[in-house]
Amino acid sequence: HHIVLLPGDGIGVEVVAAATQVLDAVGEFSYEKRLIGGAAIDATGGPLPDETVDACQGADAVLLGAVGGPKWDSTEAGRPRPEQGLLGIRKALSLFANLRPVKPLTALLDASPLKRDRIEGTDLLVVRELTGGMYFGRKERDADRASDENAYTRPEVERIARVAFRAARRKVTNVDKMNVLEVSRFWREVVLDVHAREFPNVVVDHMLVDNAAMQLVSAPSTFDVIVTDNMFGDILSDEAAMITGSIGMLPSASVGEEGTPGLFEPVHGSAPDIAGRGIANPLATILSCALLLRHGLGLSAEADAVESAVDRALEGGLRTPDLGGDATTDQATRAVLEQL
Amino acid sequence: HHIVLLPGDGIGVEVVAAATQVLDAVGEFSYEKRLIGGAAIDATGGPLPDETVDACQGADAVLLGAVGGPKWDSTEAGRPRPEQGLLGIRKALSLFANLRPVKPLTALLDASPLKRDRIEGTDLLVVRELTGGMYFGRKERDADRASDENAYTRPEVERIARVAFRAARRKVTNVDKMNVLEVSRFWREVVLDVHAREFPNVVVDHMLVDNAAMQLVSAPSTFDVIVTDNMFGDILSDEAAMITGSIGMLPSASVGEEGTPGLFEPVHGSAPDIAGRGIANPLATILSCALLLRHGLGLSAEADAVESAVDRALEGGLRTPDLGGDATTDQATRAVLEQL
Ligand SMILES: CC(C)[C@H](C(=O)O)[C@@H](O)C(=O)O
Ligand SMILES: CC(C)[C@H](C(=O)O)[C@@H](O)C(=O)O
Repeated sequence: HHIVLLPGDGIGVEVVAAATQVLDAVGEFSYEKRLIGGAAIDATGGPLPDETVDACQGADAVLLGAVGGPKWDSTEAGRPRPEQGLLGIRKALSLFANLRPVKPLTALLDASPLKRDRIEGTDLLVVRELTGGMYFGRKERDADRASDENAYTRPEVERIARVAFRAARRKVTNVDKMNVLEVSRFWREVVLDVHAREFPNVVVDHMLVDNAAMQLVSAPSTFDVIVTDNMFGDILSDEAAMITGSIGMLPSASVGEEGTPGLFEPVHGSAPDIAGRGIANPLATILSCALLLRHGLGLSAEADAVESAVDRALEGGLRTPDLGGDATTDQATRAVLEQL
Repeated sequence: HHIVLLPGDGIGVEVVAAATQVLDAVGEFSYEKRLIGGAAIDATGGPLPDETVDACQGADAVLLGAVGGPKWDSTEAGRPRPEQGLLGIRKALSLFANLRPVKPLTALLDASPLKRDRIEGTDLLVVRELTGGMYFGRKERDADRASDENAYTRPEVERIARVAFRAARRKVTNVDKMNVLEVSRFWREVVLDVHAREFPNVVVDHMLVDNAAMQLVSAPSTFDVIVTDNMFGDILSDEAAMITGSIGMLPSASVGEEGTPGLFEPVHGSAPDIAGRGIANPLATILSCALLLRHGLGLSAEADAVESAVDRALEGGLRTPDLGGDATTDQATRAVLEQL
């Protein structure tokens, strides 16, 4: 199995290095490291070199760290930005579905800002559309006005709806803003169509995005699968991540059509404030490797082994600074390796 | 003082009736009741009759209940919808700033889904732009595609930034998605401009919307004034409302230029599930009357009196069903009146 590594910026470099040690402990993989984000801008002038895209297209799976940092932040139109690398690779690989499971680990239940009785039993999956909507809409800018277009086509909505309905255990909650947005009324209509034609036996409900933002805080355990567009999904999946108390714990998978390589990455960002200090929590990236093994390479037993090693390490007391402890990236990685 | 009442739909009718009793207890006001939302669609075919707009334009202040309900929900393009009444009156009165204070009442600290130590000290204000952005952008729709444009002009951003900077006590947190959206880069640039030119002494920081959605849950007390666009503001202000545990408690003020009538309304919706049963919590609307008295009519002493009457009623044990009690709308109203 051939894996392309895209460490990117900030702590991305550290957590990807840690996670490959865990991959090596459960199988034999060949790696190819490529540039993306700010690191690529510094080295090549652009955030996504052609060689990076080519390498990813030829890989079995891609592991990404994080992109971005204040060094490259600018409000100037037309300036290259690290995030374009991430958006570009999502688009180039047609990774239209971003899957973010949120399930608080028992050992960490008390790390949540939410009361224990509110989060107990939470086990939800956010299915976020990842290659359409406002992220990729026509952008305009002049001296006194700027705009982005938020557009969806029928096939774009159909394929993400299918991913959600297939993933449902109890139900699918579709989230939109159909009382205001034309694109949301269209989105909801297509979701209803796909449901009626292809998944009539799955329970589906519909929620406005403002209400969903409330329900995620007040009653997270009532959700199963949430399906929503790119922009709403960005906001709601980070909000949902907070349920667990540490965004340093959460993995994500971005997938396209069957048979194409998926991209796996932690939900957290490049954390420039702690980059280079060896204290980043590598668990989200290690858990992203579990998703990579399971969904990217079909290695379920290895994926299970990694996930339960993380569980046991936490039960054994492992806590990085973001979880209130003082384990370094290295110590955290070794704690997981010892359980394997 | 002349107040236009727009009860609207669902529990809107009940809570507005309750709140006017409280207004009558602190002053002499003349009222004019007008149609909006689903009620207006049923009576006139459209959600915002001209007489409603005329009446509001001639008023000193407007008190609104809520609009919408499943009866009028439809994904069909071009169908009249209750929400157009609300959006239309906001636009007609140029109510470009929506102000939502979030300050958990001591008596209700335990009603929050968040742990007490996370919310203690929270006292924030969301300043949401209300007449621009994706809500009012060009809409397109054909059989296979739909879109909304998310646009802002310089004067639109300038005037909402000024409202936020003027309201700041400790700092202003500007929320956008400048790493992806052109409109956000423009928005941030204008906020930075207004800050540098007009409010150099106010502390300002900038946060991406996904991060803000997390911080509102994990560290709400670190915020003072949040300023953001119409769509992000819709989501974040409802999320922030949940900090207090009951959206049935939160008032809002929508204001335009100095000297024009403001519109005051509870943050909650029309709650069709409990409409007509006399159990809606009227406190958010009563507290909206306090904002109406203070910001709409300049009657600060009366506003203070209403707010402290609500506080005392809650300390005295008043709890409507949404707060875990069984007080009816009437009983809640009387509990407040007794404290006046
Ligand atoms: C870095 C940024 C462009 C990205 C996004 O908004 O999609 C990130 O927040 C994410 O959620 O993966
Ligand atoms: C009813 C709806 C159109 C409205 C909005 O989205 O602005 C409501 O959610 C609000 O926040 O006042």
